[in-house]
Amino acid sequence: MKLANTLLSVFLLSSFACSAQHLLETPEQIEAMQMAAKSDGSFADEFEARKAKIDLALTQKLNVPLPADAGGGYTHEVHKRNYATMRDAGRLYLITNEQKYANLVRDMLFEYAEMYPTLPLHPQQKEQSPGKLFWQSLNEAVWLVYTIQGYDAVKDALTTEERNTIENGVFIPMVRYLSEESPQTFDKIHNHGTWAVAGVGMAGYVLDKPEWVEKSLYGLDKSGKGGFMRQLDELFSPQGYYNEGPYYQRYALMPFVLFAKAIDVNEPERKIFEYRDEVLLKAITTTIELSYNGLFFGINDAIKDKGIDTLELVHGVTIAYNKTAEKGLLSIAKKQNQVLLTGDGLAVANAIDDGLEVVYPFDSKVFGDGISGKEGALVVLRENQDTAHQTLVFKATSQGLGHGHFDKLHWIFYNQGEEVVYDYGAARFLNVEAKYGGHYLPENNAYAKQTIAHNTLVVDEISHFNGKTSVGNQYHPDVLFTEFDEELQISSARMENAYDNLAFTRTQALVNSKEGFVFLIDILDVEAEGEHQLDVPVHFNGQFIDSNVGLQGQTQSQSALGSNNGYQYLWLQAKGEVEQDLARVTWLKDNTFYTHTTVAKKQNNRKPQELLMVRIGANDPNFNLIAKQALINRIHSSGNHQFLSMLEVHGEYNGSREFTINSKSQLQSLENISHLSSNKTVTLVKATFAPELSFVLAIASSASDENTETEFSVEGKEYEMKGNAHLFRL
Amino acid sequence: MKLANTLLSVFLLSSFACSAQHLLETPEQIEAMQMAAKSDGSFADEFEARKAKIDLALTQKLNVPLPADAGGGYTHEVHKRNYATMRDAGRLYLITNEQKYANLVRDMLFEYAEMYPTLPLHPQQKEQSPGKLFWQSLNEAVWLVYTIQGYDAVKDALTTEERNTIENGVFIPMVRYLSEESPQTFDKIHNHGTWAVAGVGMAGYVLDKPEWVEKSLYGLDKSGKGGFMRQLDELFSPQGYYNEGPYYQRYALMPFVLFAKAIDVNEPERKIFEYRDEVLLKAITTTIELSYNGLFFGINDAIKDKGIDTLELVHGVTIAYNKTAEKGLLSIAKKQNQVLLTGDGLAVANAIDDGLEVVYPFDSKVFGDGISGKEGALVVLRENQDTAHQTLVFKATSQGLGHGHFDKLHWIFYNQGEEVVYDYGAARFLNVEAKYGGHYLPENNAYAKQTIAHNTLVVDEISHFNGKTSVGNQYHPDVLFTEFDEELQISSARMENAYDNLAFTRTQALVNSKEGFVFLIDILDVEAEGEHQLDVPVHFNGQFIDSNVGLQGQTQSQSALGSNNGYQYLWLQAKGEVEQDLARVTWLKDNTFYTHTTVAKKQNNRKPQELLMVRIGANDPNFNLIAKQALINRIHSSGNHQFLSMLEVHGEYNGSREFTINSKSQLQSLENISHLSSNKTVTLVKATFAPELSFVLAIASSASDENTETEFSVEGKEYEMKGNAHLFRL
Repeated sequence: MKLANTLLSVFLLSSFACSAQHLLETPEQIEAMQMAAKSDGSFADEFEARKAKIDLALTQKLNVPLPADAGGGYTHEVHKRNYATMRDAGRLYLITNEQKYANLVRDMLFEYAEMYPTLPLHPQQKEQSPGKLFWQSLNEAVWLVYTIQGYDAVKDALTTEERNTIENGVFIPMVRYLSEESPQTFDKIHNHGTWAVAGVGMAGYVLDKPEWVEKSLYGLDKSGKGGFMRQLDELFSPQGYYNEGPYYQRYALMPFVLFAKAIDVNEPERKIFEYRDEVLLKAITTTIELSYNGLFFGINDAIKDKGIDTLELVHGVTIAYNKTAEKGLLSIAKKQNQVLLTGDGLAVANAIDDGLEVVYPFDSKVFGDGISGKEGALVVLRENQDTAHQTLVFKATSQGLGHGHFDKLHWIFYNQGEEVVYDYGAARFLNVEAKYGGHYLPENNAYAKQTIAHNTLVVDEISHFNGKTSVGNQYHPDVLFTEFDEELQISSARMENAYDNLAFTRTQALVNSKEGFVFLIDILDVEAEGEHQLDVPVHFNGQFIDSNVGLQGQTQSQSALGSNNGYQYLWLQAKGEVEQDLARVTWLKDNTFYTHTTVAKKQNNRKPQELLMVRIGANDPNFNLIAKQALINRIHSSGNHQFLSMLEVHGEYNGSREFTINSKSQLQSLENISHLSSNKTVTLVKATFAPELSFVLAIASSASDENTETEFSVEGKEYEMKGNAHLFRL
Repeated sequence: MKLANTLLSVFLLSSFACSAQHLLETPEQIEAMQMAAKSDGSFADEFEARKAKIDLALTQKLNVPLPADAGGGYTHEVHKRNYATMRDAGRLYLITNEQKYANLVRDMLFEYAEMYPTLPLHPQQKEQSPGKLFWQSLNEAVWLVYTIQGYDAVKDALTTEERNTIENGVFIPMVRYLSEESPQTFDKIHNHGTWAVAGVGMAGYVLDKPEWVEKSLYGLDKSGKGGFMRQLDELFSPQGYYNEGPYYQRYALMPFVLFAKAIDVNEPERKIFEYRDEVLLKAITTTIELSYNGLFFGINDAIKDKGIDTLELVHGVTIAYNKTAEKGLLSIAKKQNQVLLTGDGLAVANAIDDGLEVVYPFDSKVFGDGISGKEGALVVLRENQDTAHQTLVFKATSQGLGHGHFDKLHWIFYNQGEEVVYDYGAARFLNVEAKYGGHYLPENNAYAKQTIAHNTLVVDEISHFNGKTSVGNQYHPDVLFTEFDEELQISSARMENAYDNLAFTRTQALVNSKEGFVFLIDILDVEAEGEHQLDVPVHFNGQFIDSNVGLQGQTQSQSALGSNNGYQYLWLQAKGEVEQDLARVTWLKDNTFYTHTTVAKKQNNRKPQELLMVRIGANDPNFNLIAKQALINRIHSSGNHQFLSMLEVHGEYNGSREFTINSKSQLQSLENISHLSSNKTVTLVKATFAPELSFVLAIASSASDENTETEFSVEGKEYEMKGNAHLFRL
C-alpha cells in the first residue's frame, strides 16, 4: 500500500507542476467568485465586509516586529494578525485582480524575507519545539499554512525577481526549518505534526517543489512511517473519532482539511478524500455529530463554550459539502453563519441563499475509538433530530492521552437544548490572564480530571488507574453491545483495569415509550472482592426540589467531603441513610423535572446505603471552580454490587402560564427481577409507572448479534426475544 | 369629580340598554372576525386551533362537579377549565354562528344554574373571603368574568326561557353573592375587589342591569368610596405604577382592562380609557416597560420567569393597541405570540401579519409610586432599545405592601439580555407541590424579603424597618433628582426612616462614554451617629474571576455568616481586609467581564474595611433557596460614611473564536475629590481610566432643575454646570 502510493506519486510529480492551478480552487471556481462578488448574496456581503477591513489595513503602516514575546504577547499577536491579513488580501486579489492587494502581501513578505534569515531561535522558547517567529514551532507552521495561501493568490502578480526574494528569504528557509531541521515534530503522528506537514506540503504546491509534497505525505525519509498519510491512518478511528475527544478533534481538523483540499485540487488523482474509506469526511461529520444544540460534548479537557461554529469546522463543513453535496451540511453551515471567501465557500453560500439546506441527520451512533475502532467507543443515543431532543452520551472510550479524564463508563445527558447530567469539562478560563494566565488551572488535574468529577464509579475514593494517565493509556473498555430501536436504545460496556482486582460493567438504556414515558435505565455491576466504599455521583444542572431520603443538612457549617482525588473540592451539604427501597432525588431544570432513582440495598450488620448532596467549592480559595452540584449514591459493600438506577424525565413547570404538571416522579417501583426468571439467560429490570403499566427491560447474558434468540419465562409466562435487549410490558 | 361622574352615569343609564352591542366588540368587529376566520392569516390559524380544541370538548361529557377541593385540587381545576371552555365556545359561536357552540355554553350553564343555588359556602374556605364554587371568592369572580363573556356571545341563540333559567340560576345569585353579600371584598380598593367589580359590572352589561354597572363603578352605596373608579384613582400612580411591583401589576391588570374594554364598548361616553390622564393605558405600557428582555424586573415577591408574554398582558397590549394604534405595541404582541379571538385581537393579528410593528420605545423613565406619584419611584435607566442594552433599575419605591421587600434604595443591573446584578425575587416554586405546596416558602420572609438579600445598606445586620411591613408602609424614600443625557443618566434618592437615627442617600449614575467606557457610579452616603457595622452587598450572576483583596478562603469548612435577618442563609466563603485604596472584584458573565470597585476607607484604631464573599445555602436543609452568590463590602464606622463604588462593564471573552480582551478592569483610580473644589456646592467623583482620561462626575448639592447653574473650581480651573449633575473630563 505504502509502496503503491509512492509509485503513484512519482508518476504524478510531472503532471501537477504544469497546471495553472491555484492552491485551493480551480480556475472555474475563481471565475465564479469574481462574478459572485459583483452580485447580491451572502458571498458578496462577506466580500464587502472583508474588503472594508483590508482596505483599512492598506492605510496603515506595515508592522513586522522582531520576535520577542511568548503566546499572547505583543509580537506574537502581531505576527498572527499579519498572516490573517496576507491570507485575506490574497483572497481579495484573487477576486478583484486589484494590484494593491497583491502589493500588500508582497510588501509584508518582503519584510519577512529580510528578517527571517537573520532570526535565531525564538528568545521565549520553552519545553515545546521552538520556532523563530514564534515561541513554538506549531505557530510557525500555522503562519506558513495561512501565509502560503496569500502568496499563492498573488504570486502571478509579482515579478520573477520579487518572487525569488520572497521565496528565498522566507518560504524556503522556513520550510527547511519546519521539515529537515525539525524532524521530531515533522514526522510526529500528532496534530502538531499535521500543521507542519500541511504548511510544508501546501508550500510545495505553490513553489512547485514536489519533493516537499512527497515528504509531507510520507515523512522526511518518504517511507510512510511519518507524514500526512500515516497521520490519517492513526489519528482517527475508522469512524472518524479523534482519541482526545471533540474539543481537540475540532482543533486538529484545520490542517487536515486544508492540506487535503490542496491535494485534492492539485492532485485529484490521489483521491485523498476517499482514502481509508473516506476517513477525512468522517472526521468532519463526526466532529459535527459530537455536539448537542451546537456545542461539543464537554468530555475530557473541553472548554464548554466551543461548538460547531468554530472556524476549523467552518472550513471542514465547507469542504465536505463540496465533496459530498450533502444538504444536511448546509444546515450546519447556516448555524455557523460564516462565509468563506473560497470557491467552496461560494458554493455553500449560494446553496444557503437558495434555501437548499435540510436538517442535519443527527442519529444514534457508535464512534469506535482507537486505530482499529475497537478500543472502546463513544456511544451516542439520540431521541431524534429536534434541537430539544434527548441525548445520552455513554463514554466508553479509551483514556484519550494527556487530555483524557479518569472517567471510564461515565455518561452525560441532554434534554431541551441543555446539559442536564453534566461533565465538568476542563478547569480553565481560556486566555483569561487572572486565571493562571488562561492556561489549564491546577484544579484541572486535581479536580476536573478525577473520577469523582464524573458520573461513574469511584472505589474507595480513588480515581481510575489511580489517576495515572500512563496507566490509563494502556487499557480501554470493551463495548459489549449496542442496539437501537424505536422505543429502546441501549449500550453496554465493561471495564476491567480501572482498579486492581475489580471490574465493572455498565448498561445504559434510553427509553421513549409509546405511552410517553421518558427514562434512562442505568445498570452498573461491580465485580469486586472484599470490602469497598463505592460512590456513584450524578452531577446535575438544575434546582434540587425533593428527595425521599431523610437528608441531614449541614446547616450551621459544612466541611470538605474528603481530602484527596478531587473529594477535597466538594462541600458535603447533606447526607442521609436510605431506609426506603429507592433513593430518589428530583430536580427542576428550566421547565422540566428530572428524578434520579437508585435501588437501595439492605445490608445486615453493615453501614446502610447513603445519599449525599455535594457542591463544588471547598479548598478553592481563588474560586477557580464553578460551584456546581452533584448527588452521590454511596454504599460500603462486600463483594459484588449492582447499582440499578433510573433517570426519569417528567412533568412541566410553566411559570409564564402558571401551571405545573407531574412534578413528582411517576415511577412507582424499580427492581431487578432476574430471580423470577426460570433461567439465567437474562437480566430483567422491572419499572412500574402505574398499576397497569410495568416495563421490563430484558438483557441477554450471552447474545451477541440481533439475530440471536433468547427464551425465558417469568411467573410462568414464556418470553422470547431476539438480540441483546428488549423492552417488554408486563 | 366623583359627583360629576355619578351624574354623567345616570344620564347614560338609559342609552346603553338599547344598544345591540356585544360585551367586548362592536357589530362591525364581529363581522370582520367572521370574514377573517375564513381567510388566511394568524387570526384564522388561531381560530382553527381553538376550534379543534372545542370540537374535541363537544365530544366529551359535561363535567360540573360539586365543589370540594381547594386551589389546585380536582374540582377547582375542573371549574377553571369549564369557564375557559365556555368563553372559547362563545367566541366560536360569535364567529361561526354554529348552534353547537351556543348549545355547549347553554348546557354547561344549565348545570351550573341547577347547582349554584344549592351551594353552601365552599367546604375548603380558609382565612380568605370564601366562594361557593371555589375556596375563595376571588376565583368565583374570575369564573364570572370569563363565563359572562361566553354567555354574552351566545345569549341571542337561546330562548327566553333558557336565558331565564341560566340568569336566575347562576348569574343573578352569583352577582348578589359577590356584591351585596360580600361588601368587604366588593368595596375593597385592592385587586381582589377589581375582579369582583369587573365580574359584576360585565354581567350588568350582558343582563341589562345598569344598577350592577353603577355599583361596580362607584361601590355598593354608589358614593364613589368603593368601586372601579376609586380603584383607578388609588391602585396606580399617575405614571401607571402599581405599588406591589411588576409581578403583581401584571396579575392585577386583567380585570382592569377587560372591564374597561366592556365599558368602552358599551358606554364609550364614559371615556374610561381617558380617565385620570389615561391611567389605564399607562398601567399597560408601564407593565411592559417594567421588563428587560421580555422578563419583568424581579423586584419584591416576583417569580422571575414571568414576563411580557403572560395572558394578562396579551389582553392589555391587544386592547391598548386598538385604543392607541401605537405600532411599538405590535412588537410586544409579536413577542407574546398569542392571538386573541376578539375584535381587538383581529386588528393586532392583521397588523402583525402586515408587518406594521416597530421597535417598542423602551426609554429611561421615572415611575412615581403612590397615589400622588411622589411616594418614591422606580427609576429605570436604559442605554437604548436593543435587546442587549444595559439597564439600571434603581428601586427608590415605597414598601409595596405585603409583597414588598425591605430593600430601600436597592438596585439591579442588566446587560447582554441577562440580569447581572440581581434581585433574588420571591422564594417560591409556583405550583410545585414538594416545595411547600407551591406557596411562598418560609424562606421568602426569612431570607428573600430581608435587606441582606438585596443590593443596599444593612446596618448592624438588621433589616430596614426592623423587617416590619407595617412600619415600612408608613415611609417612603424621596427622589431628589433624575437626569438623562446622552452620556450620563443619573438619579438620586434619600431614605430617612429605614433605621432609627440614621438616613442614607444614594446616587446612581449610568455612564456610556463617547470613548466606549461603560460604568455605573454608586454613591451611598450614610448619615449616622455612633458606631455601626455597615454592609453593602452586591448580588451578582457569573463566575468570580479575581479580586485585588487578599481573601482568606474558608477552605476546609465554612459557616453561616450570621444568625438572623437572612444572614443565617449565607455561607461565608472568604473574607479579606482591604489594604489597598480600592476593593475590586471581577467576574465573568457570559461573554462580558464586570468589575465592582469600592473605595476603601483607612481607619485608625478601628477594624479595617473588609470584603466578604458569600453564597446562599446555610440553614437550608431542604434546598429551598438557589445557591447564588454575593460580595459584601463591610465597614465598622463611627458617624457618617460614604460608600463610593463603580460597576465597570468591560472586555469580551470569546470561547468560540478563542480570544479574550480587556479581562482586567480598566479603572486606574476612583476617588471623591470634592475637597479639591474651591467651594461646597458640588460633590466631585473622579474616575481615571488612562493617564490622559479622567472622568469627573459633578453633582450639585442644591440644584433642583436643569436650568440651575452651579459654579466651582478645581485645581484653579473654573467650571460651570447646569442642572443637578454633569460628566466632565479633566
